[in-house]
Amino acid sequence: MTTATVKKIVGTNITSPKGFKAAGMHCGIKHKKKDLALLVSDVPASVAGVFTTNAIQAAPIKVTKDVVYHTQKMQAIIVNSGNANACTGKQGLLDAQAMQQLAADKLQIDASLIGVASTGVIGEVMKLAPIIQGLPNLTPKADLESAIDFAQAILTTDTVMKNTQYSTVIDGKEIIIAGTAKGSGMIEPNMATMLGFITTDANIESAELQQALSYVTDITFNAITVDGDTSTNDTVIVMANGLAGNESLTPQHPEWQNFVDALHVVAQDLAKAIAKDGEGATKLIEVEVKGAVNDEEARKIAKTVVGSPLVKTAVFGCDANWGRIIAAVGYSGATVDVDAITIQIGGTTMVENGEPVAFSEEKLIDILKQQEVKIDVSVGAGEGHGHAWGCDLTYDYVQINASYRS
Amino acid sequence: MTTATVKKIVGTNITSPKGFKAAGMHCGIKHKKKDLALLVSDVPASVAGVFTTNAIQAAPIKVTKDVVYHTQKMQAIIVNSGNANACTGKQGLLDAQAMQQLAADKLQIDASLIGVASTGVIGEVMKLAPIIQGLPNLTPKADLESAIDFAQAILTTDTVMKNTQYSTVIDGKEIIIAGTAKGSGMIEPNMATMLGFITTDANIESAELQQALSYVTDITFNAITVDGDTSTNDTVIVMANGLAGNESLTPQHPEWQNFVDALHVVAQDLAKAIAKDGEGATKLIEVEVKGAVNDEEARKIAKTVVGSPLVKTAVFGCDANWGRIIAAVGYSGATVDVDAITIQIGGTTMVENGEPVAFSEEKLIDILKQQEVKIDVSVGAGEGHGHAWGCDLTYDYVQINASYRS
Repeated sequence: MTTATVKKIVGTNITSPKGFKAAGMHCGIKHKKKDLALLVSDVPASVAGVFTTNAIQAAPIKVTKDVVYHTQKMQAIIVNSGNANACTGKQGLLDAQAMQQLAADKLQIDASLIGVASTGVIGEVMKLAPIIQGLPNLTPKADLESAIDFAQAILTTDTVMKNTQYSTVIDGKEIIIAGTAKGSGMIEPNMATMLGFITTDANIESAELQQALSYVTDITFNAITVDGDTSTNDTVIVMANGLAGNESLTPQHPEWQNFVDALHVVAQDLAKAIAKDGEGATKLIEVEVKGAVNDEEARKIAKTVVGSPLVKTAVFGCDANWGRIIAAVGYSGATVDVDAITIQIGGTTMVENGEPVAFSEEKLIDILKQQEVKIDVSVGAGEGHGHAWGCDLTYDYVQINASYRS
Repeated sequence: MTTATVKKIVGTNITSPKGFKAAGMHCGIKHKKKDLALLVSDVPASVAGVFTTNAIQAAPIKVTKDVVYHTQKMQAIIVNSGNANACTGKQGLLDAQAMQQLAADKLQIDASLIGVASTGVIGEVMKLAPIIQGLPNLTPKADLESAIDFAQAILTTDTVMKNTQYSTVIDGKEIIIAGTAKGSGMIEPNMATMLGFITTDANIESAELQQALSYVTDITFNAITVDGDTSTNDTVIVMANGLAGNESLTPQHPEWQNFVDALHVVAQDLAKAIAKDGEGATKLIEVEVKGAVNDEEARKIAKTVVGSPLVKTAVFGCDANWGRIIAAVGYSGATVDVDAITIQIGGTTMVENGEPVAFSEEKLIDILKQQEVKIDVSVGAGEGHGHAWGCDLTYDYVQINASYRS
């Protein structure tokens, strides 16, 4: 994917694009860990967003959608972890609006330009007091330390930060796209307790930014699954402040694809990092499907396989149980030619044209012991091609989720 | 459900209906446990069947479908556990046909009247030698011991047998319907590594029997889920040999509903027993949904809630985390009125009209410690009503499935 014109930047810093500042701190929503964060652009930025498809949408989703769809510009976003402010009724909406106003007052920016994102426990009323007390001590800066503070303050059960950044060149100007994300449970297709924040100094209008983000989301964030649960709070926001000084990007721009490619790899890195850090996970599982009727069906098969609890536990146990893979292919609902199915794990063929193939169990155990396991499936029904990412299902997933609130 | 005219019979015996004999033994497909079984009627019986909807169907499914759909009578069924004979290519079909012929030779019944069912590991070629050697020692009898042998021989990771029986009266004759089932993983909607065998001495043609079974399956076997994985081998077979001597049952018969009610409770008992014995489960979870647009959507919501890994782990951990329940309602895809949602756990209201309600955590922990946990959800969108059953997600599920083949 990384083409000659899209380059990974070593180091990870959501404030790398020109004109972005960040901050994160512990204000007291959680017991000890950082739980409050701000991301600010020097100037109002073009904005695009994708949000949970869950019918139950948390209050901050409503507030932020209003910024993305009505203001169509965003200059800052305030984020808290520890409380999702979801299913909190009318009070929840008032609280999310209050967070927006508190950030507006602090930053001296109009509230209509400020997004709100929350993640954590569902159904508990927000405590605003810690936020009110904490905000004066939250000072957005453009340095690496502040970017890390932000990346840490948005985490819940995550075990690691998820950051990435790439550069590309458009109109002879260097463009940087950087992203940070959180999420490790309730991760499934259409977003889930997943927050993603992507900053870029590219010059692009909000409509075109939304077009690029929607395309990229389908093949990245929507292609990961941890447990099939879709959250009430999922949000990915891209802010593009234009400070790189390129000509405004549209699909007609000769270097449009550079921008989309760079956004793609940023989103893919974040999505894979979320899947790999799935609650209790020890391994990243990647499923690549070829030969489906179309790309959409290929992704559907890939997601069904990577989401199967039986496949996930087999990978955890280093058991080359391809029967569970083929069973998942079969119940995916996609069109397949049963007599043309081929399955490989880590490059070793286990099923060819629908029939079992002898393989070395020892070799497979070695393959399954790796931290990243690749499953290739070909279904002989067409030219469709797609990927999905997930993780193994472990004792720790159960442990983490049997006691989340306690 | 049990009406005055449908009575539960104490004791459990698939050979209780007149003219049925059963047998089960260890023949050597598994290391130690029973793995080969026969169920026989004295006379050819009317037959109905429901089968997995997985695109990948095991060889015995093909053989048994032929009996149900073409012969339209069944007199016996041969069952093995330990090997699913699924994804075994052309050899698998030859092996399933060979099992049918072996049973035909032993019982002196035409092969076209004999069904075949297999459950166990996918993708390993059947070993016929143990079956050939074991069959002469398998002697179907009508006694309780033989019925228990049958019920045990069809199990895989199950920890308990699943048996039930009811009686009703039609045309002044006592009719008995008895059932036995297996299944504890790969359990999801449309059947899954689930085998069910139901016997009755009722007099009913195959077409009417199929009509009753299809109706009942939707609200029982298709309303349970353990892990969302649909197997390649699921089969429920009902054999009705007519020896009770009632007038042939049709929907026009004044006592038709008695028969359907009795079949319903037999199927529901077996379905709940399978859910309760889900791999690693410590608790049966029942979700009842009211107020959906229609019954189908109500069952869809119920199944989404009971299938959510986060709800399942919360119940395991005795955590009254209703946020996960409402999130699952939200992503079920069904129409709901967010401001009318009401949620109860064990009769205690936690959400009313979409807003959290204060409740006693201590009381809820006591409720969640029970072996059966009832979740009631009302979604305010209509008159639809439905149930689903599942189980909690535990360390033992992971342990069982991380090492199934080893």
